[in-house]
Amino acid sequence: MTRQENVKDNAVAKKHEGLRVIFLGGLCEIGKNMTALEYGDDIIVVDCGLTFPSIDMPGVDLVIPDITYLVENRDRVRGIVLTHGHEDHIGAMPYVLKDLNVPVFGTKITLALVEGKLREHKLENFVLNTVAPKQVVPFGKSFRVEFIRVNHSIAGSCALAINTPVGVVFHTGDFKIDFTPVDGAIADLPRIAEIGKHGVQLLLSESTNVERTGHSMSEAGVYRGLNTIFNDNEGRRIIIATFSSNIHRIQQIIDLAVKYKRKVAFSGRSMLNVAEIAAKIGELRYDKDIVVDIDRIKNVADKELIILATGSQGEPSAALTRMSTDEFNKVTIGANDTIIISATPIPGNERMVSNVVNNLYRKGARVVYESLAEVHASGHAYQDELRMMYSLLRPKFFVPIHGEYRHLKKHAEMAMSMGHPPQNIFLGDVGNVVEVTKSTIKQVNNVPSGYLLVDGLGVGDVGSTVLRDRKHLSEDGMFMVVLGIDRRNGELTALDVTSRGFVYIRENDDLFEGAKQVIKDLYEALDQKELADWGNLKNTIRKDVANYLFKKTQRRPMILTMILES
Amino acid sequence: MTRQENVKDNAVAKKHEGLRVIFLGGLCEIGKNMTALEYGDDIIVVDCGLTFPSIDMPGVDLVIPDITYLVENRDRVRGIVLTHGHEDHIGAMPYVLKDLNVPVFGTKITLALVEGKLREHKLENFVLNTVAPKQVVPFGKSFRVEFIRVNHSIAGSCALAINTPVGVVFHTGDFKIDFTPVDGAIADLPRIAEIGKHGVQLLLSESTNVERTGHSMSEAGVYRGLNTIFNDNEGRRIIIATFSSNIHRIQQIIDLAVKYKRKVAFSGRSMLNVAEIAAKIGELRYDKDIVVDIDRIKNVADKELIILATGSQGEPSAALTRMSTDEFNKVTIGANDTIIISATPIPGNERMVSNVVNNLYRKGARVVYESLAEVHASGHAYQDELRMMYSLLRPKFFVPIHGEYRHLKKHAEMAMSMGHPPQNIFLGDVGNVVEVTKSTIKQVNNVPSGYLLVDGLGVGDVGSTVLRDRKHLSEDGMFMVVLGIDRRNGELTALDVTSRGFVYIRENDDLFEGAKQVIKDLYEALDQKELADWGNLKNTIRKDVANYLFKKTQRRPMILTMILES
Repeated sequence: MTRQENVKDNAVAKKHEGLRVIFLGGLCEIGKNMTALEYGDDIIVVDCGLTFPSIDMPGVDLVIPDITYLVENRDRVRGIVLTHGHEDHIGAMPYVLKDLNVPVFGTKITLALVEGKLREHKLENFVLNTVAPKQVVPFGKSFRVEFIRVNHSIAGSCALAINTPVGVVFHTGDFKIDFTPVDGAIADLPRIAEIGKHGVQLLLSESTNVERTGHSMSEAGVYRGLNTIFNDNEGRRIIIATFSSNIHRIQQIIDLAVKYKRKVAFSGRSMLNVAEIAAKIGELRYDKDIVVDIDRIKNVADKELIILATGSQGEPSAALTRMSTDEFNKVTIGANDTIIISATPIPGNERMVSNVVNNLYRKGARVVYESLAEVHASGHAYQDELRMMYSLLRPKFFVPIHGEYRHLKKHAEMAMSMGHPPQNIFLGDVGNVVEVTKSTIKQVNNVPSGYLLVDGLGVGDVGSTVLRDRKHLSEDGMFMVVLGIDRRNGELTALDVTSRGFVYIRENDDLFEGAKQVIKDLYEALDQKELADWGNLKNTIRKDVANYLFKKTQRRPMILTMILES
Repeated sequence: MTRQENVKDNAVAKKHEGLRVIFLGGLCEIGKNMTALEYGDDIIVVDCGLTFPSIDMPGVDLVIPDITYLVENRDRVRGIVLTHGHEDHIGAMPYVLKDLNVPVFGTKITLALVEGKLREHKLENFVLNTVAPKQVVPFGKSFRVEFIRVNHSIAGSCALAINTPVGVVFHTGDFKIDFTPVDGAIADLPRIAEIGKHGVQLLLSESTNVERTGHSMSEAGVYRGLNTIFNDNEGRRIIIATFSSNIHRIQQIIDLAVKYKRKVAFSGRSMLNVAEIAAKIGELRYDKDIVVDIDRIKNVADKELIILATGSQGEPSAALTRMSTDEFNKVTIGANDTIIISATPIPGNERMVSNVVNNLYRKGARVVYESLAEVHASGHAYQDELRMMYSLLRPKFFVPIHGEYRHLKKHAEMAMSMGHPPQNIFLGDVGNVVEVTKSTIKQVNNVPSGYLLVDGLGVGDVGSTVLRDRKHLSEDGMFMVVLGIDRRNGELTALDVTSRGFVYIRENDDLFEGAKQVIKDLYEALDQKELADWGNLKNTIRKDVANYLFKKTQRRPMILTMILES
């Protein structure tokens, strides 16, 4: 199909389409969140998150969404709406805004965090519009977005009621319903009920904790849990690791510091960063006297100190992790320390967290973590909260979002168990597009999707070939063959081999000499014509050396052959 | 110290020593189990396990204990005693027996599994002595080992009461106390109580589940859980993944097959292997008619079939994992399948299991796993069982074994909470040696320890340097520089660069040309003397190219420089 036809085809399609919901992230195992809504000439984008690389992406720093579709239609993109300030919802902003400079909308703390990121990336001239819950923002002719307060593990979290020509689309963002939240502001259930009463065409609801029965613990429960630990650990230094973005958790810890007459030291770059931003905009409230610089904690007695640190996920470069291995020169862990890990390991991080715990114990410290005490509350709705949301809204169409496939599936089953017709549920994957009219929901053509890998300065230049090579290199290492060939007569003038990540070089002289002999023998056996075809020569060498090495070691290092002519 | 002095020193030490307990594995994060007991001229070894490589050992196949000490003292090693047939207790047998051909003792099923391994490794002429629970085996002048029945997730599991000149050492092996075991044989509590009554000098007790309160679920509970699922899934094909070594679990599934008039197909190499071995020695009892070959399942209706598969840990090459990605040509997963994962993910495997579950859901199957139903029972004692064992034995000295450091620590605290004096507890690490007399326990000199990595045919030739290189290669890839130098005048006659796992080569011509230019510039800037020192030349090239590449990409590939003279 030529480009001309393509355009025509799109135009025809557009004429007939209703509301298009484009899933660019936040479905299935792609954790980063991004959904676009398109109607007529208007597109809005909800969230703009990143994912941290999985184990099969070695060396990759970040994973961001593919926004090809949005960039191709940039004239129609009216803005980006952010539900809250977690990395998987705002982390890709610096990368996306570079290609798509549109107005951005979010609550105060969300935008403060975005601003910090843009400044780090030295980006300027972007329009950040602060909105408050209950506010309504119009986008083009098609959309009016109402921000609705929900509870979550970061302050300033909102759901979105998006008014469209086909009806209301309700996007829950990440949420829980906390009846005793730290800031007193319960999720706006009355407004949610009202919206439900007027009719919701489509509900996009998060699915993270759909496997957990009951109602999530209130953040206030964490205060009680921590309070008990503070009581039991009088006279000891207390170190608490938690997510730096959990401002309410940090507020509670500061409140406990006041109660127990302790000072608080922030430790770890993101902890310092978020504490500063949140304090500046008034989301975090404390007396300046209570904070002590991490460089000055020597002046504070153990019993009068709390260290608030990053590293609750065992991240290699975070403060607590480095403390556990004596690589953090400002804090030395000892027998008078009680360490509280106020978080749950994100799936995949269990081993890293476990290693940190073991190392802390080795230093004689006491360690308290979730399986031992109530020191963490999830920010995501459990089954009863998901049911509450669904039943208040009673949507016509339902699309579970934000979860692995199994979560989406279970969330769909939950909706069905509450009477939702199966044909009015869409279970999708990243890249899918659904078209919603006043009476129908159906999947239409997909858009480019997937992810871009960020490695150093490169965005998208590490892909499957490079990753496959990295994996191969990591498992068996590499074996290098270099040949010098005389350009006049084609004779082998020099030959060298070496390896990395394969076997100890020093103890394997025979192996390396053997490989050289294989190449020499091969060279002698080939005729002039065969030797002249370097592509073929390299392949033959690779095959013969690979066979030789496998026979000797049962390993298959990557074999790289280079030929120099002189 | 010279070798002569070393020997003298040892001799002196020996004269004064009591019983030496040598921890060669099974402590802290080194999962493989191996403990040696030494008294006078006699050494016995308890268990001989392997570990599977952790994430920081890419390409490594297996991890086995370092038995340098045992090999150096091989004349005094009287035998190897095996508590049960799990890989972390018997897996290193083929490697260890090669260097240490001593008699081996264990129960029938344990030795049947060992024999299978030795046959696979084409080893012969080893002495395997079958013992039954309650049997006592003498070793040299110093030891008499009594085998005592315990419950665990493999049949034929035993604890050991080891009579020594300083008193009884009780080694629990891996255990739970199951009052309704599948084979009717409850752990021999009366005998354990009797031994306790006569006095135990040292208790080595496993610590795996010390963080779990209460009493572990009986294996009979799994029958009830599975029975409910069988009831709910009439008419559907049922696929169950579990550990192939859990013979009692397999027996229960076969019993359910009889009850529900279904045939059983074994799938996966180790499942077939263990089922055959266990059936041969009578540990697994079933009518031959009930088994159907996995190649013939097309002839069996879905509702009349159970497939018993490997892959409960999401292992990449196991049957269920391959079914989930359509790589297993004998079974195609579909909407009429109910898949039961009858196991808990071992820490570190959560992500892999999760991926398998998601992929199975994608194929439309129902999936049942532990967080949803009672389909698995742990084989390891919970807190109440650990307390029961401790209180029956009331040992003078206590060493928690078999657990990460935090588990050992908590197990020690549990003993203290039951009145055990802290100074009579030893919390050790692999390589430690403790000396026990009738009245004292103390740590003495360590022995060589740690682990040997098995990669292909190589045992121990992959070490920290090779692993560090593999890690580096996996994160940033490699960049190769090859120089041809004229031996007569030192001139640069040829220059080539390439890379793997770094960036897409095709799209980065500029980068590669730039790197070549850096080298050419450098070559011109160096004087004759500097060029003659190849070691130095290579270093300088590496440094300059690294800086150039980092500036351009913010990545640090491994740089390898080779020089060919012609």
